[in-house]
Amino acid sequence: MEITDIETIEFTCETTKTSDEKGHAHPGPPRERVRRITRVAVDGGPDGHCLGGHRATNDLASETLSGEDPRERERVARRLRRMGRLRRDTLSETTVSRIDCALWDAAGKHYGEPVYRLLGGHRDRIPAYGSTMVGDDDPDGLGTPEAYADFAESLVDRGYPAVKLHGWMPPYDAGPERTVAACRAVRERVGPDVPLMLDSHHFYTRTEAKRIGDALAELDFAWFEEPMDEHSVSSYEWLTRNVDVPVVGPETAEGGIYTRAEWLKRDAADVGRVGVHDVGGITPALKAIHCYEAFNVECELHGGNLPNLHLLGAMAESGDYYERGLLHPDYDYDATPAYLASPRDPLDDDGHVRVPQSPGLGYDFDWSYIETNRVEP
Amino acid sequence: MEITDIETIEFTCETTKTSDEKGHAHPGPPRERVRRITRVAVDGGPDGHCLGGHRATNDLASETLSGEDPRERERVARRLRRMGRLRRDTLSETTVSRIDCALWDAAGKHYGEPVYRLLGGHRDRIPAYGSTMVGDDDPDGLGTPEAYADFAESLVDRGYPAVKLHGWMPPYDAGPERTVAACRAVRERVGPDVPLMLDSHHFYTRTEAKRIGDALAELDFAWFEEPMDEHSVSSYEWLTRNVDVPVVGPETAEGGIYTRAEWLKRDAADVGRVGVHDVGGITPALKAIHCYEAFNVECELHGGNLPNLHLLGAMAESGDYYERGLLHPDYDYDATPAYLASPRDPLDDDGHVRVPQSPGLGYDFDWSYIETNRVEP
Repeated sequence: MEITDIETIEFTCETTKTSDEKGHAHPGPPRERVRRITRVAVDGGPDGHCLGGHRATNDLASETLSGEDPRERERVARRLRRMGRLRRDTLSETTVSRIDCALWDAAGKHYGEPVYRLLGGHRDRIPAYGSTMVGDDDPDGLGTPEAYADFAESLVDRGYPAVKLHGWMPPYDAGPERTVAACRAVRERVGPDVPLMLDSHHFYTRTEAKRIGDALAELDFAWFEEPMDEHSVSSYEWLTRNVDVPVVGPETAEGGIYTRAEWLKRDAADVGRVGVHDVGGITPALKAIHCYEAFNVECELHGGNLPNLHLLGAMAESGDYYERGLLHPDYDYDATPAYLASPRDPLDDDGHVRVPQSPGLGYDFDWSYIETNRVEP
Repeated sequence: MEITDIETIEFTCETTKTSDEKGHAHPGPPRERVRRITRVAVDGGPDGHCLGGHRATNDLASETLSGEDPRERERVARRLRRMGRLRRDTLSETTVSRIDCALWDAAGKHYGEPVYRLLGGHRDRIPAYGSTMVGDDDPDGLGTPEAYADFAESLVDRGYPAVKLHGWMPPYDAGPERTVAACRAVRERVGPDVPLMLDSHHFYTRTEAKRIGDALAELDFAWFEEPMDEHSVSSYEWLTRNVDVPVVGPETAEGGIYTRAEWLKRDAADVGRVGVHDVGGITPALKAIHCYEAFNVECELHGGNLPNLHLLGAMAESGDYYERGLLHPDYDYDATPAYLASPRDPLDDDGHVRVPQSPGLGYDFDWSYIETNRVEP
């Protein structure tokens, strides 16, 4: 069994999202965008796929990995990681992750098993929190504390057992008081029993972060996520010592499992965090999860996607929620994207998302749509 | 697919080993002993087996686990671990490990894959060190420094790339000087290029351990293993700070991945250590390995057995050696035990042991012998 190619399938698709200068999503007018699927082509076994990917990454990886056995994920991960030291753009943890996930997809298909079962897992449904987009200035969107409260109430009514706010971030006014006011309005609206979390502007100072953290503790928030630049581990040690709300991290800081080990050693957060696309795929994310388990530190997963959903199905000791979204009053997250033949991560009536039971990761791509709308580079 | 029974297959077999009061093996006159195989019986899939096991453990686990899906290893491991809190004898990490290993054997057979490949591994042969039995008082055995030197030389001639001495332990004289003399004699005999390790009497004081450690540093030993009671983590922190030879551990201390995390946090050893039968099986041993990798701490595996061999095949970043033995001039380790149809972990001419390529763990049991010699409790 060997890898023959790592292909980047590019196709156009309508979206009603736009990005601000920081890369955060907001609702936007309908437009065509290019989407990508990473395909690891295998001779002697099924191909593996993962939504997303980067052409330069996949092209370079293809040169390197052609002829490798797709089952040898540890070797592949190590090679890409070491090659990435001097190619931090092309082979970063955030770009190689789709290749690793596609290898797990291929393995699951080869063995006829959903990935979470290959990982020894047993949970086939995970409670989801509704994860909002970042704030804006639209009073009917996420422009005021009242607007956040309206939307959070609608998410609870929709069945979400918990809600996470992404607060305001520049270019919008991101003052701590505005964020706290939104958190307070949401808590007052949904009542004391709904778990609430905040992911805030990532560049507050320590004292700003503490001011928000103290307010979140008073509002009984379940966690406080990335209020400061994560490269300053000392700041997170300081914050974790000085606020009562559980601090969660790291999420976007580079360094994968090594960075998480450092945070663990320094008690820099109360709750750990990892997402497949933050650390290079399922292989390293699983190692991070095991590390958190060894330190008896809860771990919550970053981002809504099928690889994370399978990891959650395999986590025995923590992983309370699947992050579903990002959501906004003016964005129809539940609409099935044209490149899928069935809804992505649909929400059950009781607020759970099911882990796909088909072999591999369980992507249900509409290949006919994708072929019709394919674009060549 | 469900577990229907966890059976303990007991049979008699000749051995030429005996145990001293501490449980350490020595050569002995031929005698019959009872050996055990743990069998996890599965309805709707292949059974899983692991050499070894405990009847009381398996009986209690069978009551609990019947009806469970054998693929749900995370759930099974957690249940047994939590049930073991008040049943530390029956469901300790050292007794439940065979059940977890048998589940991995069943998984490998179900998917048609050797376990190391399910784990994403790629190494199908591992360098082995010859691991001696503990010392004795026999000048033709392991009774003098000269006897250790003779035996170490024979192991190097036999092809072992490295040799580990188990020193003297009570009831034999276990003074630090005697152990150091054996290490010195071995180093002088095999020359400077053969990696040597010492696993010594486990109950030295700090100053005795330091005296040995200083000598091992001078003799350029590759590691120094368990010279003190591992429950005293502070002693290992102290020793690791105060000797130049790499200190390895923990090995027998209870607490599995949690204990290893504590040692990592406190830098209590230079090199980590785990064995499947120390921590409850492949599932927790893999987590420990991932934890060591996150801290960039090498990990060496304790004990020669097929589950450890598969783990080594899956380790990308460390795991330099497979521990082969225990060996003694008067004990024929290479003789195939009557209950096996082919040699166990045979040594290649260049000092490697191959990871079995058959599905599961690759035990080649002689079921006809086992059935003929079966004993009922």
